[in-house]
Amino acid sequence: MRVAIVGATGYGGIELIRLLRQHRHVTEVSVFSSTQAEAPLTSTYPHLQEVYKGILQPLDTKRLANEYDVVFLSAPPGVAANLAGDLLEGSAAIVDLSGDLRIKDASVYEAWYGQEAADATITRQAVYGLSEWNGEKVSKAKIVANPGCYPTAILLGLAPAVKNNGIDMKSVIIDAKTGTTGAGKNPSATTHFSEMNESMKIYKVNEHKHTPEIEQQLSDWNEEAGAVTFTPHLVPMSRGIMATMYATCTSDSSAQEWIEVYKAAYEGHPFVRVRENGFPATKEVYGSNYCDIFLDYDARTNRLTIVSVIDNLVKGAAGQAIQNANLMNGFEAAEGLELFPIYP
Amino acid sequence: MRVAIVGATGYGGIELIRLLRQHRHVTEVSVFSSTQAEAPLTSTYPHLQEVYKGILQPLDTKRLANEYDVVFLSAPPGVAANLAGDLLEGSAAIVDLSGDLRIKDASVYEAWYGQEAADATITRQAVYGLSEWNGEKVSKAKIVANPGCYPTAILLGLAPAVKNNGIDMKSVIIDAKTGTTGAGKNPSATTHFSEMNESMKIYKVNEHKHTPEIEQQLSDWNEEAGAVTFTPHLVPMSRGIMATMYATCTSDSSAQEWIEVYKAAYEGHPFVRVRENGFPATKEVYGSNYCDIFLDYDARTNRLTIVSVIDNLVKGAAGQAIQNANLMNGFEAAEGLELFPIYP
Amino acid sequence: MRVAIVGATGYGGIELIRLLRQHRHVTEVSVFSSTQAEAPLTSTYPHLQEVYKGILQPLDTKRLANEYDVVFLSAPPGVAANLAGDLLEGSAAIVDLSGDLRIKDASVYEAWYGQEAADATITRQAVYGLSEWNGEKVSKAKIVANPGCYPTAILLGLAPAVKNNGIDMKSVIIDAKTGTTGAGKNPSATTHFSEMNESMKIYKVNEHKHTPEIEQQLSDWNEEAGAVTFTPHLVPMSRGIMATMYATCTSDSSAQEWIEVYKAAYEGHPFVRVRENGFPATKEVYGSNYCDIFLDYDARTNRLTIVSVIDNLVKGAAGQAIQNANLMNGFEAAEGLELFPIYP
Amino acid sequence: MRVAIVGATGYGGIELIRLLRQHRHVTEVSVFSSTQAEAPLTSTYPHLQEVYKGILQPLDTKRLANEYDVVFLSAPPGVAANLAGDLLEGSAAIVDLSGDLRIKDASVYEAWYGQEAADATITRQAVYGLSEWNGEKVSKAKIVANPGCYPTAILLGLAPAVKNNGIDMKSVIIDAKTGTTGAGKNPSATTHFSEMNESMKIYKVNEHKHTPEIEQQLSDWNEEAGAVTFTPHLVPMSRGIMATMYATCTSDSSAQEWIEVYKAAYEGHPFVRVRENGFPATKEVYGSNYCDIFLDYDARTNRLTIVSVIDNLVKGAAGQAIQNANLMNGFEAAEGLELFPIYP
Repeated sequence: MRVAIVGATGYGGIELIRLLRQHRHVTEVSVFSSTQAEAPLTSTYPHLQEVYKGILQPLDTKRLANEYDVVFLSAPPGVAANLAGDLLEGSAAIVDLSGDLRIKDASVYEAWYGQEAADATITRQAVYGLSEWNGEKVSKAKIVANPGCYPTAILLGLAPAVKNNGIDMKSVIIDAKTGTTGAGKNPSATTHFSEMNESMKIYKVNEHKHTPEIEQQLSDWNEEAGAVTFTPHLVPMSRGIMATMYATCTSDSSAQEWIEVYKAAYEGHPFVRVRENGFPATKEVYGSNYCDIFLDYDARTNRLTIVSVIDNLVKGAAGQAIQNANLMNGFEAAEGLELFPIYP
Repeated sequence: MRVAIVGATGYGGIELIRLLRQHRHVTEVSVFSSTQAEAPLTSTYPHLQEVYKGILQPLDTKRLANEYDVVFLSAPPGVAANLAGDLLEGSAAIVDLSGDLRIKDASVYEAWYGQEAADATITRQAVYGLSEWNGEKVSKAKIVANPGCYPTAILLGLAPAVKNNGIDMKSVIIDAKTGTTGAGKNPSATTHFSEMNESMKIYKVNEHKHTPEIEQQLSDWNEEAGAVTFTPHLVPMSRGIMATMYATCTSDSSAQEWIEVYKAAYEGHPFVRVRENGFPATKEVYGSNYCDIFLDYDARTNRLTIVSVIDNLVKGAAGQAIQNANLMNGFEAAEGLELFPIYP
Repeated sequence: MRVAIVGATGYGGIELIRLLRQHRHVTEVSVFSSTQAEAPLTSTYPHLQEVYKGILQPLDTKRLANEYDVVFLSAPPGVAANLAGDLLEGSAAIVDLSGDLRIKDASVYEAWYGQEAADATITRQAVYGLSEWNGEKVSKAKIVANPGCYPTAILLGLAPAVKNNGIDMKSVIIDAKTGTTGAGKNPSATTHFSEMNESMKIYKVNEHKHTPEIEQQLSDWNEEAGAVTFTPHLVPMSRGIMATMYATCTSDSSAQEWIEVYKAAYEGHPFVRVRENGFPATKEVYGSNYCDIFLDYDARTNRLTIVSVIDNLVKGAAGQAIQNANLMNGFEAAEGLELFPIYP
Repeated sequence: MRVAIVGATGYGGIELIRLLRQHRHVTEVSVFSSTQAEAPLTSTYPHLQEVYKGILQPLDTKRLANEYDVVFLSAPPGVAANLAGDLLEGSAAIVDLSGDLRIKDASVYEAWYGQEAADATITRQAVYGLSEWNGEKVSKAKIVANPGCYPTAILLGLAPAVKNNGIDMKSVIIDAKTGTTGAGKNPSATTHFSEMNESMKIYKVNEHKHTPEIEQQLSDWNEEAGAVTFTPHLVPMSRGIMATMYATCTSDSSAQEWIEVYKAAYEGHPFVRVRENGFPATKEVYGSNYCDIFLDYDARTNRLTIVSVIDNLVKGAAGQAIQNANLMNGFEAAEGLELFPIYP
């Protein structure tokens, strides 16, 4: 499998490089950048010295489309919307890690993103790459919209309950917490160490762009799904997402029943672990492609609490992208992704 | 004001010492310990060298009850339940920072705490010291049960909405996050740096002892109050609590309306700041007695989101205890507590 | 004492505001900014809501020079060099927190700073404000160059040994570690949370601008002083400096002898604590004006190890600046600076 | 290769398990514990759910000695000293990660460790496993004493200069900084999150047990080597060691010359990277077996500064142990260790 990465200087890009190193079918990983072409990637990332010798190459859509088996678009917003049309004319499978192609309804996209939507002929083709649930479509897709980091944790956490009709869809509340790498490589006041350290912040209350992505998928699964409450928080750590989700059950239940529902739902999906021991922590999936799910039911309130944790750069970005590329190329979903969590 | 601290070697104890240093009416701060008597406090806490010269004294209930104006009980569970009876026979005002005396209903206490409740004659006398709302009772009290750290942030955040009948009491969900000092000074696996650092944990889902404390106060305020969902999380920081609270409104509303309701409610209460600029962060109240409250309303879901942040050791413990002691002794509530947040 | 702060939006500026709140002789604190005039300081720093209502005023040298008792220059490099001449014509005492006025020899300044030195008539007047050692000169000064954060910790740590002729001046090696606030408020790749967190960095090896400042003061104290080795490191914490210093002793010695020398040297200086219990940690001086010094002597190598810790924003910047302003205005050195360390 | 790990519940143990997962020649990894036998390792470490199903087995020296190709002793002090004699009678290669077998001179061991030394017949056989320098001896060894975490970083950093006779051996000063995992899994006051976070600590000044280990190896390399100054510090991060080392050069030199010396020395050793870009940071080797070395020379003081960084649990423990086991079993040194640093 020959692989190209567009936007390799971002965190998604270097995480792809790290993980592809473990992939037995990858013969080449080339890196492309519209802004830093000709520089070795090690001038941005000294940790790659001697382990990755790639030079950033200027974008060449024709080469990308035809000389590679997979093109990962790990570039800023707008790049995928611009490039995808041309890339689709070639032979490469395309996995886009940006938010450009995830929303099917252009007006919804524009309302939440505040910018023009990608061409509908492209978004229509793009399969939403939540592999555990859309794996069959992904395996036939030419282009995949890789899910956002929050939606990955949230949708994997909600799916069995939502599809099972066991919860009141109007009651869904999602309180999510992320490490700072979700905000990307560019320094900002929000992610300045001096102020982010020893502090916890809430942000974009009721206005985060991942909201319509979550709602779109929930509606696909359950026709009663509507608006959800989704609140993101920043936690002083680099990696990790924890999503704590609340929903009222449609009938009396128990934690054990829910655990059985979830275990059945994720049977055969190695990257989702329904937790058996203890309360989960983000460090327990650090550096790995796992999504751990914990469930509890409170009879006093008839409410289900679902907790899911992922590494936002792996299962929430590069890992899931490779999982999708595997399916698109006929490999095992887990190929190259069998790394253990690095703990502690 | 002569002050005694029982249990001065804990984090609540040394925070009392730090804050009382600023108090213009305090003439003496003595420290007591049942386990480490005769040692200078500096052998436990070298940061006090030259600034606090007190020697830990053995417990002597009679002296405590009669030679001091205020006795702060900052000791492990059970100590207050044992000592309070004798202390009440003396002249000192008593402020207990433990959970021993907060719950009025012994059976509720025993169900959540798993141990015997304090004598009812004592818990009946103990005024729940949420100063902003119970200030008048506190000022006449002989003994005050200082609120828990979580309940302080949560109840200050919910009070105006709950008393205003503007929210459906059955819909209240509280997702709270704390720094590790809430877990106290004793080392444990949970708060071991190597595993807590760069990690976020959820714990005691639907079983945290602060739940009945929250529910008891909500019921006092609103007869429709019942069970709430309260979920605590540990965040890799030493100080700070952020409580994110969700409730469905009883009618259409707006963020601005709610802000006005809250501003009116906290008029004249200097330590509660209804936020005007930006989303709150725990660091913005670090080391101070402030509780910052942020409000948002989502018309799509008709849901109110309330966020409150405090320093768990100050407003959530020692600061609020001093605020209560001030009221009990006829001083301004803010005396000794006017420190700015230390930022960044 | 009427106080003006130029450059109040930086970390040094808001730390001055925090500390001046405790100062009994300060009647006014006004804030000035060349770039953000007319904005309330709370739009930059929401943590000041309701506690500091100052509006940033445009720079007006004449007003600054004449309407205030003290002007703190807490502005970027170059501002003090430009303003100081005009300010010196007024009546205000001036304390500059930048590096503009610390180096007496213009050629040395230009070699290390890579830019033009301030006018020699100004640098000549500027007294180096290491209060514990230059207090008398400071008390008579019209303008003070407040020491850099690293030099404060290092020079307080070295002074008694250097003045005592007890160490070989050629053997001095300084290995210093700082939190990130030393790098200021502007976000950068180096202080981006995602990369600074869970990492330790070394930087500017043999080329840090504080080197000549340290050497200049050592030469004043001991004519055998020459070049020293000074290595700065960045540690994943917001506040705090630890300087570990090594020197070969001129004769056999013992830790206890050195401790006596240091205790004698700092007798009567409340902010320097020669440590009695345990190894020091930066948190033990957090938020305070203390400099803690620990000493050990190794007979095997005949080497003295000196460790000093400060809060870089307090003793290393705003606290020491207030200490200097106190001396210039005839107040007790400690006025407004008696805050305990905030621990933990 | 059949592998047994004694003491698998410690950090060294689970890091061995993580890394051995990548090893193409490992067919079995069994875990042993004297204290927790019969429990699945997942009850201690939930992050291993579904990825490692091993059950802790009671110690059985005979089985260990004969049924495995390699036995890693990752147990507390004293265990290796007790077990090694019996294990040596079997066929397994033994790699001990504790400090029991590193010091050849029993009196030196006893002076620094304060306990009885292991039997001399064992320590005599134990090869000091600094693979890059002792690789040939290691490949013929039956038992290897795996170097301590600090000595690994320090000795790799010093070796070329020491062997080259380019530095004054009496001038060597080592200022080292570690993350907290070096202190192991047991919670303690020192590594309590609330106090370790946002703080930097110095400890065991002139008395750390790794001192004689460093000196012993330096003496093997250079007969002028004697006592060195070695100062350890704790930094608020979980993983990583940075050692900053200072030495006076025996003649005028330049950074570039030293870089050439080091590059030549480590030619063919894939895990030591002489840095080409930028100052090093511990995160740049996180989770990997690399040791990055940076060099600078200061003509003003004629001093060489050497900085080396490692991940203390990988190159400083489990990674190096596997590297040694590879050599002992005739595999490539790098087998199973080719993981990239995880960044950021």
